[in-house]
Amino acid sequence: MTYRAPVSEYQFIFDHIVDFATVLETDTFAEIDADTVQAILNEAANLTSDVIAPLDRGGDVTPATLVDGVVKTSPGFGDALTQVAEGGWIGMLADPENGGMGLPLTVATAVNEMMSGACLSLSLYPLMTQGQIEALEHHASDEIKALYLPKLISGEWCGTMNLTESGAGSDVGALRTKATRNADGSYAITGQKIFITWGDNDFSENVCHLVLARLPDGVEGTKGISLFMVPKIIPNADGSLGETNSLKVVSLEHKLGIHGSPTCVMAYEGAKGWLVGREHEGMKCMFTMMNNARLGVGVQGVGIAEAATQKALAYAEDRVQGASPIGREDGSILDHADVRRMVATMRAETFVARCLSLACGVALDLGRTEPDQQARGAFLIPITKAFSTDIGHEVAQTGVQVHGGMGYIEETGAAQYARDARITSIYEGTNGIQAMDLVGRKLMDGGDAAFAILDEIEAFAEEARAVLPRRAIAVWNAAETLREGVETMLALPMNDRFAGAVPFLRAFARVLGGHYHLKAAIAEGGEGKHSRLAAFYIKRLLPEHTALLAQARLGAADVYALSSEDLTA
Amino acid sequence: MTYRAPVSEYQFIFDHIVDFATVLETDTFAEIDADTVQAILNEAANLTSDVIAPLDRGGDVTPATLVDGVVKTSPGFGDALTQVAEGGWIGMLADPENGGMGLPLTVATAVNEMMSGACLSLSLYPLMTQGQIEALEHHASDEIKALYLPKLISGEWCGTMNLTESGAGSDVGALRTKATRNADGSYAITGQKIFITWGDNDFSENVCHLVLARLPDGVEGTKGISLFMVPKIIPNADGSLGETNSLKVVSLEHKLGIHGSPTCVMAYEGAKGWLVGREHEGMKCMFTMMNNARLGVGVQGVGIAEAATQKALAYAEDRVQGASPIGREDGSILDHADVRRMVATMRAETFVARCLSLACGVALDLGRTEPDQQARGAFLIPITKAFSTDIGHEVAQTGVQVHGGMGYIEETGAAQYARDARITSIYEGTNGIQAMDLVGRKLMDGGDAAFAILDEIEAFAEEARAVLPRRAIAVWNAAETLREGVETMLALPMNDRFAGAVPFLRAFARVLGGHYHLKAAIAEGGEGKHSRLAAFYIKRLLPEHTALLAQARLGAADVYALSSEDLTA
Repeated sequence: MTYRAPVSEYQFIFDHIVDFATVLETDTFAEIDADTVQAILNEAANLTSDVIAPLDRGGDVTPATLVDGVVKTSPGFGDALTQVAEGGWIGMLADPENGGMGLPLTVATAVNEMMSGACLSLSLYPLMTQGQIEALEHHASDEIKALYLPKLISGEWCGTMNLTESGAGSDVGALRTKATRNADGSYAITGQKIFITWGDNDFSENVCHLVLARLPDGVEGTKGISLFMVPKIIPNADGSLGETNSLKVVSLEHKLGIHGSPTCVMAYEGAKGWLVGREHEGMKCMFTMMNNARLGVGVQGVGIAEAATQKALAYAEDRVQGASPIGREDGSILDHADVRRMVATMRAETFVARCLSLACGVALDLGRTEPDQQARGAFLIPITKAFSTDIGHEVAQTGVQVHGGMGYIEETGAAQYARDARITSIYEGTNGIQAMDLVGRKLMDGGDAAFAILDEIEAFAEEARAVLPRRAIAVWNAAETLREGVETMLALPMNDRFAGAVPFLRAFARVLGGHYHLKAAIAEGGEGKHSRLAAFYIKRLLPEHTALLAQARLGAADVYALSSEDLTA
Repeated sequence: MTYRAPVSEYQFIFDHIVDFATVLETDTFAEIDADTVQAILNEAANLTSDVIAPLDRGGDVTPATLVDGVVKTSPGFGDALTQVAEGGWIGMLADPENGGMGLPLTVATAVNEMMSGACLSLSLYPLMTQGQIEALEHHASDEIKALYLPKLISGEWCGTMNLTESGAGSDVGALRTKATRNADGSYAITGQKIFITWGDNDFSENVCHLVLARLPDGVEGTKGISLFMVPKIIPNADGSLGETNSLKVVSLEHKLGIHGSPTCVMAYEGAKGWLVGREHEGMKCMFTMMNNARLGVGVQGVGIAEAATQKALAYAEDRVQGASPIGREDGSILDHADVRRMVATMRAETFVARCLSLACGVALDLGRTEPDQQARGAFLIPITKAFSTDIGHEVAQTGVQVHGGMGYIEETGAAQYARDARITSIYEGTNGIQAMDLVGRKLMDGGDAAFAILDEIEAFAEEARAVLPRRAIAVWNAAETLREGVETMLALPMNDRFAGAVPFLRAFARVLGGHYHLKAAIAEGGEGKHSRLAAFYIKRLLPEHTALLAQARLGAADVYALSSEDLTA
């Protein structure tokens, strides 16, 4: 079976979990109504299920290759991405004045989830360009905007982000790519960048690279970095294509997964570039789009989790093996308690990750005018990125297990989800860095954003007690334990927080998961499929938060007590 | 860096955790002394570190292929396996009367761990033949023994196990391969088998297949299955090679990992076979060697975990990225609390898995004459198989994370460990089946084996209180909580147990892990590298058992409440 976009689930979550209606009530989205949103989701569901998902396997077995300096992409990717562009999806978040759809981030999040679930490799192409559009809208000069935005939004050109170098990954401030000023106001960029997603292709007219580099008078570290637009082909003032720029793809990486996404080593040899934002403020421009980018990656975990769950469920329903332990004549392995437990875990976790990403989208949409919501969005970002991507991978690995020996055979496709998902816990800030962001920067408000969320969880649980007393009490207690965990974190020195950051983040997601499942159950009056799933989650998975918080609060002493000699057998 | 066998760690665990000396004191191993064991481990360490480990990457990038019906193996594998054979390692468990070394299983377990850590793909070749030797020693006629055992033990010929068919995996009783009686006392075997590890190669003189098939008068299910020796080339009575048999490799699987291990689809077309054991008692023969086989697979998890930990530690020590948060001038990413936490987790988990496998080996060695130890070994088998293989994969995945973006690049090799490890949770009985075995068959003694282990853990913790009170109390409490968990399990109907089997098994391993770490710390007088690692484990990882046991005791109702419709978004 191939992926089918879970379009009715978005509506349920919009209505009952994240209160999406409040987004449409804002002035920002006055032009958009609920019917339009529904129509957009349906259209995206068709495109991703019917056109994109069938390409996923081919992208894996026929990876992008480098032929005579040009990236030859996987079969069908060019045509499908042309349809993506023509459907307006690349510009779905962009300002309508520049030809964009101007959709709420919440809706784009649902669309991006469908794209990722259908084919992660392919989905990175529009995602990269979305990020570039956002950076330009916020920071580029009017000239650059006028020249580039319409082409990027229409999808005629595409965009990439060039941050990483071989000695500068998580520590981007260590980068060595140089920029010098040309006499005509442009800049000359020289250096090598690695891990450039969709650094080239064989179907778009132009590839526009946003490149971080250091000017001669740029100080060391992140404060001396500037951002430049460096197109593959230099456009003339009227948007027509001019000279070829001095840049090239040196090689493609051989990766564990996302084979259909060309990951390039790029060389810039005095390539012509134009400043975006101010000199030495390149990192500021990057930070602007970091929230959306991290949400975009978190959502990839949700997409893969959904696809893997669908596939595992279909297999488990289909595969007959042994007598049914519950005596069904036409029983399958789904009748085995452990198999059903696995699939139920996949479904329950996918639900949490999806709610998280959409809650994050709503907070950021509302946050355009409401500072409290802005702070909430910023707080939820690292949780969404790290938890949802970890879950994407875990769910995909459980999917492999449900398939048994067949899961280990590549033709089955279950393993591809796990391989593809694995990068999402690493790129756009490793999940360790997300956790450090959560317990560091995101607690600098003294815990205000965290406590506001916990207040809301507890208030809802108190209301829910009348209908589902045991579930509600479990969630309330978990929130209270987490509250103590937040207080403990706030009292610890920073490096002690860091030692517990990863389990703390997961504990927070666990408790949010309890809240989302409880809301879903209450929306059904305590009877229905979401209620049954909520019972499963709250009883089985929510209790994990106590061990996680026990670990989170320990500080760093026992970690640093272990020398590298101690870590050797 | 390449893998170095952790030979001193075995000695520490032999002496201080599993009391290996008691094995050498038994009459069974009267011929073997501690110095010999040490020499054997050193020799295995050299072979695996210097000869086998360098082949691991080549096996991944140059998989075995099928050329004109013969499997062409990965570069260097044939020569290295010839050295393995010449070193006597294939027959290390076999009876000295047949040319074997007659080593304790505990020692073989350490050797197999080194083999797996050095190159899992390659290590499966001797492991399969070890299993076949064991089956023949127990069940074959004197004629078959005389003809096959010397050649298998010397490594001139190799062995395979043929159980699985496309419709008969975990449910082996569903198999359809047929056997009919020939006039000369042999049998004709017809059918197709899948997932046959090392089903063929281009360097051994002969390949001896043990095949499960059903005679015309065999009843349906497992009770109608017989076991046959079906050689690729039919040997003459003097051991020289005669006619080629009617069997062939149809194809090789494309797998997620262990590319160097040829996984064959085998077709038997009236192939000549000889009965091993009695007619219709094939499954009994299989069960004889199941314990060793499952231990052998569990140990693969330990080997991969060790290799992945070594690699991640080396990378983390080497990689400079950002300022050291603890102010070291020559700091590396190992100075970051979260990175050190990850590597420490890898090391602490590897230690537990290794102790488990060696404790299991000791119990089975002693169990040859002591029924209590036999029962303990049988109880520890599913825990060792499932926990150690899960840990092997988890540790390898953490290793990928430690490597950051480089971990996703195949050339780095970190991802290969994760891909290779992934099969170990599936084959030789999925880890779900191991867990069902634990809460089903292995609790049929009313919990005697479990309670005996818990008594020992608590008694040790009580003694340890004088030296390490907080650690000892934590372990004692955990054992007591687990005791209640066992009692709850015993009171549940079987299918309710099955719904909690996987978390129950992991909780048991968690508590055993606390015990092993505590023993290690006490052996050092509470001061030393094992003590620091014990503190880390007991504080951070042991608490997981409470959430696991909370899940284990829930029964199956909430799982079965979820229909397949409920599991669809």
